[in-house]
Amino acid sequence: MSPTAGRVITCKAAVAWEAGKPLVIEEVEVAPPQATEVRVKIKFTALCHTDLHFWEAKGESPLFPRIFGHEAAGIVESVGEGVTELKEGDHVLPVFTGECKDCAHCKSEESNMCDILRINTERGVMLSDGNARFSKKGTPIYHFLGTSTFSEYTVVHSGCLAKIDPYAPLDKVCVLSCGISTGLGATLNVARPKKGSTVAVFGLGAVGLAAAEGARIAGASRIIGVDLIPSRFEEAKKFGVTEFVNPKDYDKPVQEVIAEMTNGGVDRSIECTGNIGCMISAFECVHDGWGVAVLVGVPHKDDSFKTKPINILNERTLKGTFFGNYKPRTDLPKVVDLYMKKKLEVEKFITHRVPFSEINKAFDCMVKGQSIRCIISLEE
Amino acid sequence: MSPTAGRVITCKAAVAWEAGKPLVIEEVEVAPPQATEVRVKIKFTALCHTDLHFWEAKGESPLFPRIFGHEAAGIVESVGEGVTELKEGDHVLPVFTGECKDCAHCKSEESNMCDILRINTERGVMLSDGNARFSKKGTPIYHFLGTSTFSEYTVVHSGCLAKIDPYAPLDKVCVLSCGISTGLGATLNVARPKKGSTVAVFGLGAVGLAAAEGARIAGASRIIGVDLIPSRFEEAKKFGVTEFVNPKDYDKPVQEVIAEMTNGGVDRSIECTGNIGCMISAFECVHDGWGVAVLVGVPHKDDSFKTKPINILNERTLKGTFFGNYKPRTDLPKVVDLYMKKKLEVEKFITHRVPFSEINKAFDCMVKGQSIRCIISLEE
Ligand SMILES: NC(=O)c1ccc[n+]([C@@H]2O[C@H](COP(=O)([O-])OP(=O)(O)OC[C@H]3O[C@@H](n4cnc5c(N)ncnc54)[C@H](O)[C@@H]3O)[C@@H](O)[C@H]2O)c1
Ligand SMILES: NC(=O)c1ccc[n+]([C@@H]2O[C@H](COP(=O)([O-])OP(=O)(O)OC[C@H]3O[C@@H](n4cnc5c(N)ncnc54)[C@H](O)[C@@H]3O)[C@@H](O)[C@H]2O)c1
Ligand SMILES: [Zn+2]
Ligand SMILES: [Zn+2]
Ligand SMILES: [Zn+2]
Ligand SMILES: [Zn+2]
Repeated sequence: MSPTAGRVITCKAAVAWEAGKPLVIEEVEVAPPQATEVRVKIKFTALCHTDLHFWEAKGESPLFPRIFGHEAAGIVESVGEGVTELKEGDHVLPVFTGECKDCAHCKSEESNMCDILRINTERGVMLSDGNARFSKKGTPIYHFLGTSTFSEYTVVHSGCLAKIDPYAPLDKVCVLSCGISTGLGATLNVARPKKGSTVAVFGLGAVGLAAAEGARIAGASRIIGVDLIPSRFEEAKKFGVTEFVNPKDYDKPVQEVIAEMTNGGVDRSIECTGNIGCMISAFECVHDGWGVAVLVGVPHKDDSFKTKPINILNERTLKGTFFGNYKPRTDLPKVVDLYMKKKLEVEKFITHRVPFSEINKAFDCMVKGQSIRCIISLEE
Repeated sequence: MSPTAGRVITCKAAVAWEAGKPLVIEEVEVAPPQATEVRVKIKFTALCHTDLHFWEAKGESPLFPRIFGHEAAGIVESVGEGVTELKEGDHVLPVFTGECKDCAHCKSEESNMCDILRINTERGVMLSDGNARFSKKGTPIYHFLGTSTFSEYTVVHSGCLAKIDPYAPLDKVCVLSCGISTGLGATLNVARPKKGSTVAVFGLGAVGLAAAEGARIAGASRIIGVDLIPSRFEEAKKFGVTEFVNPKDYDKPVQEVIAEMTNGGVDRSIECTGNIGCMISAFECVHDGWGVAVLVGVPHKDDSFKTKPINILNERTLKGTFFGNYKPRTDLPKVVDLYMKKKLEVEKFITHRVPFSEINKAFDCMVKGQSIRCIISLEE
């Protein structure tokens, strides 16, 4: 048993004291894990737009001080009462959504939207007792997405930890716990293009590039990338994108442009922008008879998806996905294996690396749109 | 070879001379089938709303005189040049949509929307030469849906004829060439409920009852029928419907009523009214995580399908189907077999029978909403 087990650990964490203000590396106290919880030593974490979004806290109920971070990899330090499926030393990916293995969703083959551990952006405390495990001089510090990986140690519900191959390099596979798996799974699990098919990907950010990577792995013959930023195309080529469409270059709807390029429409499309117009275009650009469109991007809450019903009746399919339909504990270890078998290329998603002390640089990079993923090392 | 092969046949047909006026039984001439065509002796036909709709010709470009009818069963009288897959004496169901077996749709496992022989409500002539095969004293009489089964003999493209088991009773299986297969296939081929699942069916007309019959065959545990007409429920029980919801009985949206009845939503829903509000309700009443909604009903062309994108993102699936995704030539013989094996109950769809001479009674019955299917016998 770890010498720190059962005790409060004092360690470094990057605390967000206020919305939009640079994080401050502080000494914080991390309480021991309670029943069903696990304390994890974080080795590497990455930054995702969702961190940025809640850190900026525009239009969201602000919850500060808070420790952000949810794309990460670490090693189990100790486990709380009743945790049997994980033990000290296990390599894990903390995930922003969980798998209780007991609810209707977890029991369904199709869903990964666990009733108990489903993503909750509002909650800043642990589920079991409503308290935070982080504090500084008695002041509680809120959790984020149940993961809070911008800390040397964090406490996570055991249902939100995927146990992975201990030989997998944590400085690479840490990016698999959110955006990359989201895009990859949207293609591999939901759109499921057949070998040789045509695929359109709307939005060439991290999620869209991962969707394209999925299409490349599935053997798509053409992968059409759609984005407003022309510079995205060069990068996108590495992810298998063969053609680029910039809606700004045309004075007709992009769905018509794509239909003309593909003799009636693509076989599959994946929407990774969150823009409602793109969602509609992504649906209307798939071929009648067999086309499948998959929505991934998170819309504004007032948006309305609108289409002529005949577009649906002509045997098109519209699906939405959350976290690429991966069940975190059951499926993420397999995504790691896909990387270990050299089928999935993870390195090309990692464009930047910084030590933990320079975590605010990762935020700058993302705000400026320079990075796909910036790895923040807690080892340095 | 039939003694009439290659010659013009004079026979009885029910001709619609004008929109909305009773059909008139006339002696008409039926030309021999040309290349790729087949002349069929119709034994039994039924009446479907689509006949009624184009006969009333409200808002449709009227094409008269015309011979309606598209749900039927008959026997091949003679075949045109190059027709090898059918011969005199074969038992067939004429279908309003075809299967060329050669286009991208026919080659796709998923689609039945043949590029060449797909339903065409406007065309009143044969595809090969643009002429009608029907005439009366030199005046051409238009075809309808390529089938025109309200005639003792008709000429049909060979790609629109399903060759069926010669032991199948034609006075029963004639109803399988349109609405019943449409609803049945929507459930069995597209919604695909698992054994024990909950299914909602919107609209308890012939198509909706067939969708319910599909759910019964699939072993659904609960089948919730939705209709505005309370009397439909008694009838619907025979088709496996276990519960009835009349949207008029509630002051909240029917999707909320169904979600409350089913702990969050049904596993599958099938929309068979054509009402745009029902389409939206049918989508929104399926369970998040795994729910699948299938649209069958034909909407008004100005309708717009609207929903919050979060309803899609929460892992619901929306699909449209045409003719229950059955490929007419490949799959309809199997639907007939399903009946022959006593899995599919066809008799309960047949509520009325009239001789050909009383065909206008079948129209009356349908206009008054009294019949599910009325069989018109050309044998009497
Ligand atoms: N990042 C994640 O971990 C994650 C997880 C689940 C879902 N999502 C959602 O997926 C979406 C994409 O995430 P991301 O991290 O890749 O974002 P991103 O901002 O890095 O990429 C979005 C891309 O879409 C492009 N875009 C925006 N509007 C467009 C338009 N109208 N037409 C064409 N292109 C347009 C942008 O130029 C950009 O390249 C977001 O809605 C996000 O909320 C993200
Ligand atoms: N009949 C066919 O062969 C066929 C084939 C393919 C598609 N379709 C389409 O399927 C639909 C159904 O066909 P049908 O022949 O069963 O029609 P139908 O008119 O016999 O049945 C429709 C049922 O829907 C109910 N309904 C109408 N509006 C409703 C509402 N707002 N809420 C609840 N119930 C409502 C009606 O009361 C009726 O019982 C039509 O749109 C038709 O065009 C029909
Ligand atoms: Zn669960
Ligand atoms: Zn994320
Ligand atoms: Zn075809
Ligand atoms: Zn019909």
